[in-house]
Amino acid sequence: MFEKPLGMRDTLPQLYETKSQIRNSIGDVMKSWGFQFIETPTLEYYETIGAASAILNQQLFKLLDPQGHTLVLRPDMTAPIARVAASKIFNENYPLRLAYSENVYRAQQREGGRPAEFEQIGVELIGDETVSADGEIIALMITALKEVGLEDFQISIGHIGFLKELFLQILGTEERAKTLIKFLYEKNYVGYREHVNSLSLSTIDKQRLLDFLNLRGSTEVINQAIDLVEYDQGKDSVLQLKKLWDTMDDYGNQEKLKFDLTLVSHMNYYTGILFEVYAKQVGFPIGNGGRYDGLFQKFGKNTSATGFALRLDRLVEALGPLPEITPSECILFSEERRSEAFQIAKMKRAEGLKVVLQDINGVNHIDACTDQYEEITFLIGKAGGRVST
Amino acid sequence: MFEKPLGMRDTLPQLYETKSQIRNSIGDVMKSWGFQFIETPTLEYYETIGAASAILNQQLFKLLDPQGHTLVLRPDMTAPIARVAASKIFNENYPLRLAYSENVYRAQQREGGRPAEFEQIGVELIGDETVSADGEIIALMITALKEVGLEDFQISIGHIGFLKELFLQILGTEERAKTLIKFLYEKNYVGYREHVNSLSLSTIDKQRLLDFLNLRGSTEVINQAIDLVEYDQGKDSVLQLKKLWDTMDDYGNQEKLKFDLTLVSHMNYYTGILFEVYAKQVGFPIGNGGRYDGLFQKFGKNTSATGFALRLDRLVEALGPLPEITPSECILFSEERRSEAFQIAKMKRAEGLKVVLQDINGVNHIDACTDQYEEITFLIGKAGGRVST
Repeated sequence: MFEKPLGMRDTLPQLYETKSQIRNSIGDVMKSWGFQFIETPTLEYYETIGAASAILNQQLFKLLDPQGHTLVLRPDMTAPIARVAASKIFNENYPLRLAYSENVYRAQQREGGRPAEFEQIGVELIGDETVSADGEIIALMITALKEVGLEDFQISIGHIGFLKELFLQILGTEERAKTLIKFLYEKNYVGYREHVNSLSLSTIDKQRLLDFLNLRGSTEVINQAIDLVEYDQGKDSVLQLKKLWDTMDDYGNQEKLKFDLTLVSHMNYYTGILFEVYAKQVGFPIGNGGRYDGLFQKFGKNTSATGFALRLDRLVEALGPLPEITPSECILFSEERRSEAFQIAKMKRAEGLKVVLQDINGVNHIDACTDQYEEITFLIGKAGGRVST
Repeated sequence: MFEKPLGMRDTLPQLYETKSQIRNSIGDVMKSWGFQFIETPTLEYYETIGAASAILNQQLFKLLDPQGHTLVLRPDMTAPIARVAASKIFNENYPLRLAYSENVYRAQQREGGRPAEFEQIGVELIGDETVSADGEIIALMITALKEVGLEDFQISIGHIGFLKELFLQILGTEERAKTLIKFLYEKNYVGYREHVNSLSLSTIDKQRLLDFLNLRGSTEVINQAIDLVEYDQGKDSVLQLKKLWDTMDDYGNQEKLKFDLTLVSHMNYYTGILFEVYAKQVGFPIGNGGRYDGLFQKFGKNTSATGFALRLDRLVEALGPLPEITPSECILFSEERRSEAFQIAKMKRAEGLKVVLQDINGVNHIDACTDQYEEITFLIGKAGGRVST
């Protein structure tokens, strides 16, 4: 009867409190690592942000402003933060660390249970091209996830630069590389193999492309990857992965990582190391991130950046049943004892308790009302005593 | 160059932190009074929420969803909360206490420095028609404002039911009443007087309408108001104000209140007691609220409700200069001492310090980088000592 638009959801108290607690815990970790939170507008110019974002055009919510410009509801936070950083706060002399936790918007074409509005909490580390920066954000993400009590998760690490170089080396054109990348994006490995076998390539090159699918696992992947590339192209990328592995060892976080060099992202602005986080029993990644060295050029700066975003809704799902909300107690009063009720409520609230003050005349059904609370104090009538249940 | 839409703003770290702190403090007060937070979608159907909201049509951001329905960016939170409460969580047996802190959206027709997106933090007390409920939300608002350190503020209390009954009594038609109300909304008292004098009314009735303008002040207003009404119509409304005054006395909050029975609101759904909060040196109300007994009918429930909303941006303005953010310290390391740097950072973060870990190879200009921090630790080179500045 009173419907919400497709993919739009209400968040009721229990979920709201859970989200708040997760957001605060993760935010505290981010701040303790020196990241500063900013907020950008929900609406941006399509020309500025919609076009720079990696989200498909048909997923954008678009509207016209009173002046006739096309606006979009921000589909992600990375492009808006690049806009703010590039125009206002980034100083090329040293890296900038920013954080956010905001809703983003992706129009749904049909009912499929997917939210059209969901919250992302993430960071961007801007102006630092070292592998230390990639390591820092992955370590920060792991620390944040552990902080909120998630234990059973795994991070797949790829390198889109390596993948593209290798494919270009073997296939010769970006067009051909794209076709193959699409199979990987869809995780359609059967289709990938069939397509590779149908190509007019040397047996050796076909084998290289097929062997590429095996580049998933632990450190052994590094050497396998180096064997696959010819000349020096692609080797730098692999060495970055090697360095990342060593860095994560220093952080003590290696056990959460595995390499998956077949990893590609729907975010097409990534240029280097990229990753996805999976938690047990959640069918989609709960977060993802990577290095994007091209996006800032769209905002007039030639700088490198890396970041991650966690999806709060999927993280809540990964953490299992929602915790109970701390219950309130209730003081039910009649007019004669209003003042007394107020004093008692004030005292209890100062002690950190949640106290509902309720005029008994505002209640239609006393029993139904009192059933909500574990503790009730009645302050009724002039002579009446104080009854706690 | 990289502009934002009209009225859209970026929130940089210092303002972001200030808003967070205010939001958390006020939220904690609301929760300690037994209010539960919920969130509703940014986008709603125009038919459901846009039409029910009290915001002018030209101020709505409208768009079409992929299915061709008209959506709006929520222009306020009261109508969406009424939708959720009516359809899901309100039980007519007893009152429901909900809270929110969300951005709302109002399209700007021209550049005038007004934000088109701003955050409201507020509550709705649903299903309680007693004056105690009105008193509770005003007392809660006062407690919340004091909690965030605002001292110099004043609440003007009116009664739209009283005003409308009086005008109807004297003027006979709603149409005529509306004309007069418009002068009050614009605070155009000269226009009001001229208009009253131009009406074909008895001298006594003209005088009553002119005297009405004086119904501003403390308790003396109660008796003056009773003198103005004929028969019993309007007297109930005045007695509600009397009871509110006594209730606020029990809360110990009378000193923040004054009556202003000429108060009308741009929110046309109010039906009873209504109010605005003013802080020194802020030209617009920092908050407002009141009783709205008709809105729920639009969602199929015949229930009474009252609530308030504070504007976070104006509250920040009222509180004066932004407080400084706790600074981070920085550990600048080279690869050889990465592991050591991580350990020290981990220890310091566990102590609650904000620590930036920075690979020296990621810095273009060391002096500019170190200038940002009051405390820096250099962990550079194999043999190098640890230098703190």
